[in-house]
Amino acid sequence: MDPKSFMEANSKQRLMELFEFLRFPSVSAKSEHKKDVLACAEWLAAHMEKMGVETQIIPTRGHPVVFGNKITSPDKLTVLYYGHYDVQPPEPLELWKTSPFEPTVEGEYMIARGATDDKGQLFTHIKAIEAFLGTGAELPINVKLFIEGEEESGSENTERFINENKQLLKADLAVISDTAQFARNKPAVTYGLRGVAFVEVKVIGPNRDLHSGSFGGAVPNPINILAKIVASLHDKNGRVTIPGFYKDVHPITAWEKKQIKRLPFSQKEFLAKVGTKGLCGEKGYSSLERIWSRPTLDCNGITGGYQGEGGKTIIPSWASCKITMRLVPNQNPVDVINRIDKYIRTICPKYVILEITKHGGTPGVVVPTDGPWLAAAGAAIKRGFGLEPVFIKEGGSIPVVGTFKRVLGLDTLLLGWGQNDDNAHSPNERFSVKDFERGCYSSLALIEELAKARK
Amino acid sequence: MDPKSFMEANSKQRLMELFEFLRFPSVSAKSEHKKDVLACAEWLAAHMEKMGVETQIIPTRGHPVVFGNKITSPDKLTVLYYGHYDVQPPEPLELWKTSPFEPTVEGEYMIARGATDDKGQLFTHIKAIEAFLGTGAELPINVKLFIEGEEESGSENTERFINENKQLLKADLAVISDTAQFARNKPAVTYGLRGVAFVEVKVIGPNRDLHSGSFGGAVPNPINILAKIVASLHDKNGRVTIPGFYKDVHPITAWEKKQIKRLPFSQKEFLAKVGTKGLCGEKGYSSLERIWSRPTLDCNGITGGYQGEGGKTIIPSWASCKITMRLVPNQNPVDVINRIDKYIRTICPKYVILEITKHGGTPGVVVPTDGPWLAAAGAAIKRGFGLEPVFIKEGGSIPVVGTFKRVLGLDTLLLGWGQNDDNAHSPNERFSVKDFERGCYSSLALIEELAKARK
Repeated sequence: MDPKSFMEANSKQRLMELFEFLRFPSVSAKSEHKKDVLACAEWLAAHMEKMGVETQIIPTRGHPVVFGNKITSPDKLTVLYYGHYDVQPPEPLELWKTSPFEPTVEGEYMIARGATDDKGQLFTHIKAIEAFLGTGAELPINVKLFIEGEEESGSENTERFINENKQLLKADLAVISDTAQFARNKPAVTYGLRGVAFVEVKVIGPNRDLHSGSFGGAVPNPINILAKIVASLHDKNGRVTIPGFYKDVHPITAWEKKQIKRLPFSQKEFLAKVGTKGLCGEKGYSSLERIWSRPTLDCNGITGGYQGEGGKTIIPSWASCKITMRLVPNQNPVDVINRIDKYIRTICPKYVILEITKHGGTPGVVVPTDGPWLAAAGAAIKRGFGLEPVFIKEGGSIPVVGTFKRVLGLDTLLLGWGQNDDNAHSPNERFSVKDFERGCYSSLALIEELAKARK
Repeated sequence: MDPKSFMEANSKQRLMELFEFLRFPSVSAKSEHKKDVLACAEWLAAHMEKMGVETQIIPTRGHPVVFGNKITSPDKLTVLYYGHYDVQPPEPLELWKTSPFEPTVEGEYMIARGATDDKGQLFTHIKAIEAFLGTGAELPINVKLFIEGEEESGSENTERFINENKQLLKADLAVISDTAQFARNKPAVTYGLRGVAFVEVKVIGPNRDLHSGSFGGAVPNPINILAKIVASLHDKNGRVTIPGFYKDVHPITAWEKKQIKRLPFSQKEFLAKVGTKGLCGEKGYSSLERIWSRPTLDCNGITGGYQGEGGKTIIPSWASCKITMRLVPNQNPVDVINRIDKYIRTICPKYVILEITKHGGTPGVVVPTDGPWLAAAGAAIKRGFGLEPVFIKEGGSIPVVGTFKRVLGLDTLLLGWGQNDDNAHSPNERFSVKDFERGCYSSLALIEELAKARK
């Protein structure tokens, strides 16, 4: 029996096993679920061990890591699979139509907390590996599986774990399925993520809130000044005005423009989704280009003075705001943070105290579009889905991808089997059974395609 | 015995009577003091009645008004004295060095809640009237005393009371001692107050908080847009940019400039008091001119997005701010509010929803500087204090003064006997016994000077 036939023969069995995995309420954020998280790790380790993967449960300061590996030859490509076995809290429970930890199939979907994020998507790779080991076929790559139990509660120990286990995690490439397809029947390879840089800006004026009648007009007002600062960060074309902000930004390549053009993107649907009256952004770019390939600056929060009901006639003592900048690959977060710091210090009037807190950031990452991995991933998806894959980016960051690059020197292939409307982090999380199946076949094909690409 | 000799003879007696008045914990804001407030009103009414003033306690929906009058001839000038017999809560009690409702003399000060705000200052006028009635001298003016019991809890029923009692309150001029001297030994006549106009501005973007990675750059950010709006309200010279904002603003008169020049105003002391690194405001004006004679615009509060510790990478659904404008006499609050509304609607981009709440306002008031009253008040202070009075304005509003003007057509003389550092509204409220005494003699002289000025 070849691996693909094994996979065909085990369709029902595979779903029943995933359901066992989904039944663990492995909610990492809640201490009352600590035992459940551990039980889930133990089940997963036993399952992998039984498949023939050498597996260990490695403690961290938080929830343990499940680590497996099957190294058959030092000459083969070694792929590091990353995923997480923990899940978001299911609350609010009253909004679930079925029990979150009793997986149920309704129509085309399986419904359970963790179905798509990330147990179901992770499981496709485990089952693809099993298809080789279960048939005695030669696994054409070496595999390592790094499955953490704290992703949904902030991955507090993940960076340290990676730093402390460089040898254990050593590989040629990482693979993660924790993103989504671009749209229904548009399976996607995500080849780039933006980075992020975060600062807080506080303007301090009077030593206490002052009466705006008795002092108004003669004393600096921190809110008005902060507003001027924030307003000065963009020009009328929506470009960030910080000197040198775009210095390291590469122009969008012809290949990338072509990929974006291929996508079924509807401005109208996008508008309906975000619910704004209209859109805006950097002049000269489309919405997807703005989100995927251009750096941005957004205030995430602003606060100052009286915020309750009615009025209070004060000049507040201070005002502050939180600013994040999304960075594209090649921009250095430290450099960008130093530039905004310097610029704000230049434009802020001297009659107030200015406090800028540099919170640091992570750089953007990109999988080289001219290397072998992207093509291999595309070929695997084409075989598994019977559909042309699309190549997309994501405007947000996935911190572990940056850590893999920085600490282990690894590029990461992000393959999404689920959908954006699968209710990840919301009640009634779901995963199309058909997408799960196509994901399994794609994962199987990926092993073969990566091995081929290596040659 | 003439009134002045009566006053000289009764110095100790007068202080003891004021102490009786101060012993009532007439805290209007606290329902547990309701009986104390009433007892205080009853004591005051009895005291005035005993002096020879026809007095009544008039119920309101809240605490009662004490109203007294002594009308001796329809030909005489009728002066309406306004004050309040209620006081601020004394808390925090542990910061008082003596019991707040057991008046104590320490050095040059009497210490008690209400000493300066407003029982002590109000009492100077009551004692001046008594000096005439007690000696059988002819009171050269008609007096009406309108003493409310809710000033420290928002004067909720005062405007209605004035509207419903126009005939009762009918007079030629109002007198209030509820302000302060400009500085030590700088007794002041406050001849103008700024008005106020209040709006709230809300910018609504996405229908929920969006992920700033997945959407940042392509979607309007309400905080960034609100910052642009607020920043657009002032130009680089500190002038308000709303078209027509200064349309009805009169230039500062030569007389006013002269009064301001006479004042011992130290920029350094002012800076120390407000605690800012420097000062700013409308170009071409001094600090006092900015506060007293120029309209201003201040944000009193701003809010939007995530304001807790650390970061949250969102584009917030909305942001809002509270804006008050201080107005000088002749500016119409309704007109100013319509202008800011129109201007913000013009500059706000169309891709967000804009909500402006017009909260209304009150106009500024001024006592004509070329009429007889200001000169009479100055002459009275000169006699009572033996010092040249200063003529000042106040940047804040005293709502009752606006109501007197609007409903009764009355100008108000604001005569301050206390000091700005007398701890009104704070622990250890105090009033210099000497200032109380000089206030009494000035109040006595005021009666004579106003009668003279009438002729």
